[in-house]
Amino acid sequence: MADSPSSQKISDLSEEEIIRLFSGSSIPRGAMGIGDDCAASEGPGGLERLISTDLLVEDVHFRLDSINAEDLGHKALAVNISDIAAMGGTSDGYFLSLALPGMVSINWLQRFRNGLTDLAQKYDIPLLGGDTTRSESHIMISVTIMGIVNPDSLKLRSMAEPGDRICVTGPLGDSVAGLKILSHPHKYQSLSDNHRKKLIQRHCKPDPAVYEGKWLGQQDEVHAMIDISDGLLSDVRHIAEQSDCKIEIALDRLPLTPAFEAFCSIEGTDKQARELAAVGGEDYQLLFSVAESHISDLKDQFREKFGKPLYDIGKVTKREPRIVTLWDGSPVEVNEQKFKHFS
Amino acid sequence: MADSPSSQKISDLSEEEIIRLFSGSSIPRGAMGIGDDCAASEGPGGLERLISTDLLVEDVHFRLDSINAEDLGHKALAVNISDIAAMGGTSDGYFLSLALPGMVSINWLQRFRNGLTDLAQKYDIPLLGGDTTRSESHIMISVTIMGIVNPDSLKLRSMAEPGDRICVTGPLGDSVAGLKILSHPHKYQSLSDNHRKKLIQRHCKPDPAVYEGKWLGQQDEVHAMIDISDGLLSDVRHIAEQSDCKIEIALDRLPLTPAFEAFCSIEGTDKQARELAAVGGEDYQLLFSVAESHISDLKDQFREKFGKPLYDIGKVTKREPRIVTLWDGSPVEVNEQKFKHFS
Repeated sequence: MADSPSSQKISDLSEEEIIRLFSGSSIPRGAMGIGDDCAASEGPGGLERLISTDLLVEDVHFRLDSINAEDLGHKALAVNISDIAAMGGTSDGYFLSLALPGMVSINWLQRFRNGLTDLAQKYDIPLLGGDTTRSESHIMISVTIMGIVNPDSLKLRSMAEPGDRICVTGPLGDSVAGLKILSHPHKYQSLSDNHRKKLIQRHCKPDPAVYEGKWLGQQDEVHAMIDISDGLLSDVRHIAEQSDCKIEIALDRLPLTPAFEAFCSIEGTDKQARELAAVGGEDYQLLFSVAESHISDLKDQFREKFGKPLYDIGKVTKREPRIVTLWDGSPVEVNEQKFKHFS
Repeated sequence: MADSPSSQKISDLSEEEIIRLFSGSSIPRGAMGIGDDCAASEGPGGLERLISTDLLVEDVHFRLDSINAEDLGHKALAVNISDIAAMGGTSDGYFLSLALPGMVSINWLQRFRNGLTDLAQKYDIPLLGGDTTRSESHIMISVTIMGIVNPDSLKLRSMAEPGDRICVTGPLGDSVAGLKILSHPHKYQSLSDNHRKKLIQRHCKPDPAVYEGKWLGQQDEVHAMIDISDGLLSDVRHIAEQSDCKIEIALDRLPLTPAFEAFCSIEGTDKQARELAAVGGEDYQLLFSVAESHISDLKDQFREKFGKPLYDIGKVTKREPRIVTLWDGSPVEVNEQKFKHFS
């Protein structure tokens, strides 16, 4: 890329190619950089300090006619809290930078603040600083979150082991279904109001797995962990690549909600529904690998502590960094691009 | 503001009013939040962890026809490094989030990266993570920087004491002059090329006072410190308010460069030049208060260590949070708004 002609545009590059352009800077010993949900470095009292940052841009990540101000405030912080939870950590402060066009109403900003601070107060995460500026056209929201974790509880994407099972903390696909309903409301008019509302809420107001992440972090038999933000298959691929393992995902075992199944029945088969659940992003469930010998105990303890099941959806096999999707035990291809544009 | 009608717009609020809207969240003990250049919390090995974040938006903070890609990359990091230096700290990592319109050229992005990473390498500050995303229209750059500082070396805006002198580490006004030249090139055609280039460079490629900040942090007699980003008078006002002190600034003692004096001679008097230097922002010199009994020693040591003088430009008096500007010892009013629009 050093010789790229000046006529080549950013639109010719993937996000990963852009990140690679910057990732040449060396990462110091004791600090993990680009690659995990958070960067980690030495923190206070022998703890690891976690930091993560996310950028949300109007008309790229959200549209003001699809998400209300309270939910947007909630979501901007929730996705960052989820990054800390995915490392086994506890969030302990955040920074907020906002670029706002002058014609945004004060009322909108107050409601945005309410959604954000309600979530911050729920988990006792103080606002530590930030920046506010004018924008010519679009709203931009940058949240940087800090967390701490005991080094023994830190879970990285690189820690999966052959022999591990792959689990998720809850159902998949609701968020992408909610997004599709918001984008094409007329297409899904036959859905019940109850189902429609649930799916939209799961897209607009995701619930980060805060306590689950902290507890899973404390379990020695849990190895790699990540939150499902890009989509199950993308995120599993991060673990496969960074752990140098092959990972098999049983599509027919993906947990789905009744609302999501109702959504999919409008135009697809059961298999298509699970394929959509496997590629749709923004579920913010946690996905982790756990030693097979301990999965039964872990499931029991998780159910006792959180009153809900863990879902065993696959396994880690040999040292070969790729993923395989199965249906009834046989390999099937999932066209990720096609399913991204399912509707 | 709780009852503001939905018709009121953000454009009716100052940046400080917007920040106040969010600053209700409580700051935990041991962490300093909104108010200083950085937030500080307990860090590794008894050190304080500093964090600061800044947001730069195209056509608000920079224009692509006025700053080249290398300089923009340099400046985006430099202003954050300056925040860490202003607390007496040492930068030890940064995060970069970019929102880029698809039509930005790859060549531009590579040059932006070069400007950024050259500065990062100069001060050995690794890139720890970040986020890259598409933008519909404008480039947005969010940098979050981390630093560490010994608690004994931490300098806050609230630490000025009656009896202190006020000093700056270098000349003021060059940056605002460079900005005005870029905005109205025809108006300043009589400037020499040498002067013109120097002023523009000081605006586009500011040099953070990294070593000066660290050294000043280690001097017990240095009390409050801040970097001059908003403009001398604005930044002195932050110290006056947070230290609950009256601060007198002698306008006739502000240090100016020959290039700035040549710039001002085109349309103003000497007094107007100093008034512009007092309100123009983005100088990124450090401003600090120091016990009067030690100022002579400090100036000598500073000159010996850095090969340049410190400038004594004012003093801290009684407990009354306001600033007074003097000319030849007599109070004068500076119309900050008028001088912001000097040209």
